[in-house]
Amino acid sequence: MKAKNIKNVLVLLFIVTVVFFAWKSVEASVPGWTVSGSGNVMGLKDAINLAWILLSAFLVFNMQAGFAFLGVGFLKKKNTLNYLAMSFLDFCVGGFVFWILGFGVMYGGSYLSAGLEKGNSFIGYSGFFLNGEAYNASTSAIWLFQVMFAITSCAIFAGAITERFKFTSHLIYSAFICGILYPVFGHWVWGGGWLGNLPFGEGMKDFAGSGVVHGLGGLVAFMGARMVGPRFGKYNPDGTPNSFPGHNLTYVVIGTLILIFGWFGFNAGSSLAVTEFRVAMIATNTFLSAISGALSVLVASYFRTRVSDITLVCNGALAGCVAITASGAYVPPWAAVIIGIIAGFILKASLFWVEFKLRIDDPVGAISVHGANGLWGLLSVGVFADGTYMGVKGLITGSGWQLLAQFIGCVTLIAWTLSLGYLVFYLLRRTFGLRVPLKEESRGIDIYEHGMSCYND
Amino acid sequence: MKAKNIKNVLVLLFIVTVVFFAWKSVEASVPGWTVSGSGNVMGLKDAINLAWILLSAFLVFNMQAGFAFLGVGFLKKKNTLNYLAMSFLDFCVGGFVFWILGFGVMYGGSYLSAGLEKGNSFIGYSGFFLNGEAYNASTSAIWLFQVMFAITSCAIFAGAITERFKFTSHLIYSAFICGILYPVFGHWVWGGGWLGNLPFGEGMKDFAGSGVVHGLGGLVAFMGARMVGPRFGKYNPDGTPNSFPGHNLTYVVIGTLILIFGWFGFNAGSSLAVTEFRVAMIATNTFLSAISGALSVLVASYFRTRVSDITLVCNGALAGCVAITASGAYVPPWAAVIIGIIAGFILKASLFWVEFKLRIDDPVGAISVHGANGLWGLLSVGVFADGTYMGVKGLITGSGWQLLAQFIGCVTLIAWTLSLGYLVFYLLRRTFGLRVPLKEESRGIDIYEHGMSCYND
Amino acid sequence: MKAKNIKNVLVLLFIVTVVFFAWKSVEASVPGWTVSGSGNVMGLKDAINLAWILLSAFLVFNMQAGFAFLGVGFLKKKNTLNYLAMSFLDFCVGGFVFWILGFGVMYGGSYLSAGLEKGNSFIGYSGFFLNGEAYNASTSAIWLFQVMFAITSCAIFAGAITERFKFTSHLIYSAFICGILYPVFGHWVWGGGWLGNLPFGEGMKDFAGSGVVHGLGGLVAFMGARMVGPRFGKYNPDGTPNSFPGHNLTYVVIGTLILIFGWFGFNAGSSLAVTEFRVAMIATNTFLSAISGALSVLVASYFRTRVSDITLVCNGALAGCVAITASGAYVPPWAAVIIGIIAGFILKASLFWVEFKLRIDDPVGAISVHGANGLWGLLSVGVFADGTYMGVKGLITGSGWQLLAQFIGCVTLIAWTLSLGYLVFYLLRRTFGLRVPLKEESRGIDIYEHGMSCYND
Repeated sequence: MKAKNIKNVLVLLFIVTVVFFAWKSVEASVPGWTVSGSGNVMGLKDAINLAWILLSAFLVFNMQAGFAFLGVGFLKKKNTLNYLAMSFLDFCVGGFVFWILGFGVMYGGSYLSAGLEKGNSFIGYSGFFLNGEAYNASTSAIWLFQVMFAITSCAIFAGAITERFKFTSHLIYSAFICGILYPVFGHWVWGGGWLGNLPFGEGMKDFAGSGVVHGLGGLVAFMGARMVGPRFGKYNPDGTPNSFPGHNLTYVVIGTLILIFGWFGFNAGSSLAVTEFRVAMIATNTFLSAISGALSVLVASYFRTRVSDITLVCNGALAGCVAITASGAYVPPWAAVIIGIIAGFILKASLFWVEFKLRIDDPVGAISVHGANGLWGLLSVGVFADGTYMGVKGLITGSGWQLLAQFIGCVTLIAWTLSLGYLVFYLLRRTFGLRVPLKEESRGIDIYEHGMSCYND
Repeated sequence: MKAKNIKNVLVLLFIVTVVFFAWKSVEASVPGWTVSGSGNVMGLKDAINLAWILLSAFLVFNMQAGFAFLGVGFLKKKNTLNYLAMSFLDFCVGGFVFWILGFGVMYGGSYLSAGLEKGNSFIGYSGFFLNGEAYNASTSAIWLFQVMFAITSCAIFAGAITERFKFTSHLIYSAFICGILYPVFGHWVWGGGWLGNLPFGEGMKDFAGSGVVHGLGGLVAFMGARMVGPRFGKYNPDGTPNSFPGHNLTYVVIGTLILIFGWFGFNAGSSLAVTEFRVAMIATNTFLSAISGALSVLVASYFRTRVSDITLVCNGALAGCVAITASGAYVPPWAAVIIGIIAGFILKASLFWVEFKLRIDDPVGAISVHGANGLWGLLSVGVFADGTYMGVKGLITGSGWQLLAQFIGCVTLIAWTLSLGYLVFYLLRRTFGLRVPLKEESRGIDIYEHGMSCYND
Repeated sequence: MKAKNIKNVLVLLFIVTVVFFAWKSVEASVPGWTVSGSGNVMGLKDAINLAWILLSAFLVFNMQAGFAFLGVGFLKKKNTLNYLAMSFLDFCVGGFVFWILGFGVMYGGSYLSAGLEKGNSFIGYSGFFLNGEAYNASTSAIWLFQVMFAITSCAIFAGAITERFKFTSHLIYSAFICGILYPVFGHWVWGGGWLGNLPFGEGMKDFAGSGVVHGLGGLVAFMGARMVGPRFGKYNPDGTPNSFPGHNLTYVVIGTLILIFGWFGFNAGSSLAVTEFRVAMIATNTFLSAISGALSVLVASYFRTRVSDITLVCNGALAGCVAITASGAYVPPWAAVIIGIIAGFILKASLFWVEFKLRIDDPVGAISVHGANGLWGLLSVGVFADGTYMGVKGLITGSGWQLLAQFIGCVTLIAWTLSLGYLVFYLLRRTFGLRVPLKEESRGIDIYEHGMSCYND
């Protein structure tokens, strides 16, 4: 019955799409395509920035391999295929919906490129389907870069709710993230919306998405993990948690390395231009913050436990990456180091708080890595920005206005994500259900949902 | 005796090469190298396009890691090392032969760069060894990009014939593919040959190699898998197939992701210029077609079996990539989605047809992913090209001439590949043999051919 | 007690750093940052070269994933997490120290970019912390590229001493490599020092670091593996070695592929400019030498043992990469092939010599791949450079002066690395100790040092 509902929705969606295509195809035969000469200096500038955007988009796409490795390494063998399927298909579904709906909502009205003219401070409404005016090189380059960001949010979410979440509900939720939740907030910050134009400081600034991508993904993960409940056996009757060791920690380390590799594109690509020389600073800060996050976690935990917990170190590096994502363009290298060190401490505190106090079960630590440090990243702009880029000035220059703008951004992000996130999880629980049956969970989801095991001898 | 033959051939080849080098080295001390100023606009244009070609070539090389992961995941543990060795060494052998012979055959007469002047409509004959006039930056950049394409054909082939093919025969066949089979057909389409100059439409168009690379690789795989026969135990006496589960499906998913990452370079790099702004469209279409292929397979199979077969979904994404490879430059985004959706259905039909009707054993599905969808990709140009790029107009613009050219290309590809492929497999079977002894196959090839196991505790 | 010492050192370092930051932050609020117009030809030239440097740096970073895969595949399961932790944290520690100290030592006085003015022929002393004048786009781009090289040295070292080296000592040694050992020698060759200005030929030339990075890393590995001694059970009482099979050879092959992928950035990026069209030649030579190294090892070993040892083939490809790293820019393609073929033979000879004659235990073969072939790479410049780039002329042009310069470079490298390396290993052995207790080694280091196993069911 439920599956039938999905089917109907999908079939309906498909028919609508095809009809839309058929109608649009007439228009498409006279598209708004312009071939730029590039035999002159301005044409070359466009060409090099186009190359930069595309190559960065490819690197960000490759983070999917990083998320897949990282996540699957943390899990039990019997549920790995389920996570891999979620991780693979959420970007397929999310990317598809972002093409149909999300991109137009997010960048409509931003005037960032042709075909993105319609929109207001709260929502955009042009550029859907990359059709009509939006069918051109510049707009599609931006689309490709942005869709990779949208699907990153889904990947973050997938890690926190794995090993007990329903596959179909995950795909529906991914469609919701990429179609509504992410694009609307993104529009407010990046698409010409009200947050980016706040009258404090230079308006809320989130350079590459500490808040828009990671904070949002981490907060959705928080809400999702809370509502689906902990994995069977995670908490003892007295409320103390059990630790489930990952089945392959090589994957965790490799996944982290691939993620950092992609993060260079994520952060430095967000300038959308390599003729903006600040990109060099951004890439450097990203690396410095990553290693500082790893080292701060190592030092802090080693002197307590006398063992070097490499999975914690990996998450520390990622926490550093998340935190610098908003501020990398605005701060000097020494500040990137301090931001990374603090990110490590926030990670440790948040991991403890989520697992032991709130008793929320997050198998890969996504809530703490992306959620808590996403918020810290937003605030770090208001603290460490030194005024050398775009005029953004933080506390270290003696001005508190930017920090106020960042704080408003944090509050808005939390309110928007948790409230809308709750609503949709609630609706999903009442209709499709959030959780696999206990039988599947205890015997392994792979066989039931995917018809095979991940590993076979 | 047979090994001695190989040895003699290799030693002979080596001696000839060294003598050739010694002779050419005199010439090389006064090479045709020109350092371009690049202090002016045209020099900068060359520089940025050089960067684009090289970076794309690096990405396409990385697809080797994707093919290795994907293939090995589908296999039984006892044959993994054999596949990895094939997969690694076929690109070494193929690349070497492409340097000596293939490149000159393929691009001689194309006038694409210095040193490629000699050739006719059927075959090229200049640029061998990248020596003489061909020893310059521009020609070697093109060589590097093209050699990555040539070795991709070998990688496709390796997947279909693994777990029973002889190691030495595989290497010989790879040399044949990169030296003759691929370059000659490639010359016809891309090197200034007769297919690219057909008097219908704009001549046969295969933007990045749906046919030249993937179709050819898939059709060779078809012929190879047919002639070597199915793996022991694959078919029951009554002709029904058994399914052999892959030993590590994590590798399959990761491999697919790495392949898509590389495919961006494969398709968008094939413009050989980022000053050709259409590259943005190509990259976008590649992603859209990949996710559409995955989703179409998911939807189609889920409603039949109620399980989400992730290996099928991965192959669906790759089928979408293959299909858009020829047409990505010429079609609008909505068409890329439709091309991907159809690719998914073709994949499913072909998998069924190959395994159940033809009873050909293809462990990784290479015939259906690359062969069947390579042909579909060629045809899709004739259907969906909207006339906005290079004047290529498909059925949707009301013209059928381009489709005719594409159809001729398909027929030629099938005839060339299957006939020559058959001939060489036949010769190999009569000399070195195609198949490992049954004892090796049933106990695992790794120990016999490589002296060790892939996994050791 | 010992751990307490580390703690004190770290805390002290941290305090000093923070105080330094606080003091510098005043300065940082008026940084030497210049936004370049890039609306003109020179600005565009800077932009495209900036993109080239950054993307190459990202590729070189990704080699860490390659080293992690390669190394871990060669090991026993029980020590994998230890190696992964070493491999991950040595780049964190090394990168941090390179930021504080190493970069200023290496490039101070090179005038390569703003803020690098102070230094002499033996040592540099400006650019520390990327602060003051060094806080600008150009300098930080160079820093990012160079830090990836520094940490590569550590990764090479980690492979040779794994499965018995102390974790803390490894991190201290990594700090020493990236802070002193590597930067001082690097300064001599690349930072304006005396080796690069030798009055023979064009001065010692090491284009991308056959000697500076790989030779140095390999020689340190030699000294480290010698002083820590072989793994328990590696040598029988009669001195014959036992072979320990790697636990997952899939990782070895994939790691090799990822390393070659990164090597393109390593070598072609070392021009620091894509407007220097020679980069195309460099990338092509890198690929040719890699496949030639693999094939030469295959042919040489196959006819002796009748099995194709894929791990040896992988190391052959890497040996080819190492050897061409110094000479790739100066030699024609045919010479790259010969350099690769010779690299394969050197690899085999060195592996035999190290394992059977010197009885040094090198689990991954780093000494032979990087050390022996690093030296060969340096010499190959003096043999095969054909005078078409930067006027560097080797023996094949009839001049022996360049070879003399290269030879002096080799001798200096060996003397510097082995003497200083010995000194520091000696000090470490007397203080922290080099080796884990026998109990840990025989039962597996992972549990003791990292509190968990890498693989859990």
